[in-house]
Amino acid sequence: MATQLIECVPNFSEGRNADIIDRIVAPFRNNQNVKLLDYQPDEDHNRLVVTVLGEPARLIDCLMAAVTQAVALIDMNNHRGHHPRMGAVDVVPFVPIRHMSMAQAVTVARQVGNVLADRFSLPVFLYDQAATAPERKNLSTIRAGEFEKMPEKLKQAVWKPDFGPAKIHPTAGVTAVGARNPLVAFNVNLNTNRLDIATHIAKAVRFKDGGLRYCKAMAVPLKTKNQVQISMNMTDFSQTALYRTHELIRTEARRYGVSISGSEIVGLVPMAALIDSAAYYLGLSQFSVDQVLETHLLPE
Amino acid sequence: MATQLIECVPNFSEGRNADIIDRIVAPFRNNQNVKLLDYQPDEDHNRLVVTVLGEPARLIDCLMAAVTQAVALIDMNNHRGHHPRMGAVDVVPFVPIRHMSMAQAVTVARQVGNVLADRFSLPVFLYDQAATAPERKNLSTIRAGEFEKMPEKLKQAVWKPDFGPAKIHPTAGVTAVGARNPLVAFNVNLNTNRLDIATHIAKAVRFKDGGLRYCKAMAVPLKTKNQVQISMNMTDFSQTALYRTHELIRTEARRYGVSISGSEIVGLVPMAALIDSAAYYLGLSQFSVDQVLETHLLPE
Repeated sequence: MATQLIECVPNFSEGRNADIIDRIVAPFRNNQNVKLLDYQPDEDHNRLVVTVLGEPARLIDCLMAAVTQAVALIDMNNHRGHHPRMGAVDVVPFVPIRHMSMAQAVTVARQVGNVLADRFSLPVFLYDQAATAPERKNLSTIRAGEFEKMPEKLKQAVWKPDFGPAKIHPTAGVTAVGARNPLVAFNVNLNTNRLDIATHIAKAVRFKDGGLRYCKAMAVPLKTKNQVQISMNMTDFSQTALYRTHELIRTEARRYGVSISGSEIVGLVPMAALIDSAAYYLGLSQFSVDQVLETHLLPE
Repeated sequence: MATQLIECVPNFSEGRNADIIDRIVAPFRNNQNVKLLDYQPDEDHNRLVVTVLGEPARLIDCLMAAVTQAVALIDMNNHRGHHPRMGAVDVVPFVPIRHMSMAQAVTVARQVGNVLADRFSLPVFLYDQAATAPERKNLSTIRAGEFEKMPEKLKQAVWKPDFGPAKIHPTAGVTAVGARNPLVAFNVNLNTNRLDIATHIAKAVRFKDGGLRYCKAMAVPLKTKNQVQISMNMTDFSQTALYRTHELIRTEARRYGVSISGSEIVGLVPMAALIDSAAYYLGLSQFSVDQVLETHLLPE
């Protein structure tokens, strides 16, 4: 049978203490059928983002070992950082990668949420595709109030956790577990230092203000470059294409006599997102991903 | 140790007899570590092109079994077809795909050439990257005269085969074995039916007439579409990029008031060729293939 592959990108609330970071990451190293793709501790955010890929069952084993460390070693009462957070194991998103449907990733997320509540007495919210109510789809709505306001928030019936007690873990707070599409961090730089122009363009392209459905965007000043950037999260590139977003920014920038100076993809991107853009610009008709040689090299 | 992967695209001189075609293809089926990616019998050309991928040693075993069938079943004395040909096993190119250098693919080609000569008494020429002399680099130079003129050609000292006897195999003729870069078949259609315009553009972009170094191009009428096509073989996309060729055609077409109506890639294309084009058009700076998720899914 074909091996299922799932990606997991757990965010832990520790980005400064190298020893704690090492202990959390360790369970993901040197495992058969689980690959540690990346881990990024951020001192300003005081946060650790780990990207791992593997068979669901194997990956969950590693995750539980990492959570054991995080719950034991992180005390949210002493946590300070720029990034919003509500728990030691702040958020655990699952992304279906291969031979897996979104429905199957949702099942994994719910199973993991259940176990986290049982084993660690963590209150757990399911979010995004795994959410059990519309107001729980958006992670930022769940996390609003952050760790400090969670004891009060959890008392409201509407914020009863999906799993676990209706009160925070005294040191580890609250955890969100979800299933989502692969997310592409796509940034486009402009040949200007005017943040107001970047803000206008960000609003034009993002869903929130009438733009593209699966595009989140904000304007960011790039001080060292003396430029501004449209920093985006593409939340479903299969429906809101990278090339379309890029062309829309170009079109909108023209209005201000500004051009695109370059762009970047931060972190990982599924091959299909780039193939789609190559096919658009090269004008390829009837191109199939089966024509990509590497497709035939992937394990069954 | 990392598993080496090589592609082989043997061309056999039989494109009509389904039974013979099946017998030649059979050894490539249901093998562990060897994957039959594609096979295309062409009736007009009376030719069979097989694309297989695998570990060199395993792939060579399959190839030898296929050659045994081809040598036993094809009689070149009765062969007619549009495509130039000189032998039953007309040409056997090897392409290094993964964890392999071109030098290693050349070694495989020479080894296979040697065995083909020994085991089947075939005269074998090494070509392209495996060639032993400049005039043997180009397959069409080796094949000039085709099967019918080969007995005479092989008598010349300059056309002494690299392996095997200096006379043709009575029914299987002559074989060329080589190593080359992955080849991308890239066709661009124009919004005109004027073949003279396509011919001018083909000349502008192809190496032969002063164009791009790793581009072979010819003009082709597309009768059913009432359009013309620039049909290209990109012989080293890592040096002559697809997007650059596409843009050069667009530029040249403008001269005639003609636009590109679409394009196509025929058969397989390495991921890198498309990623490179996506990165160009999206303006990605500092993008690495390691950022492509699928890179991490490939077997070691």
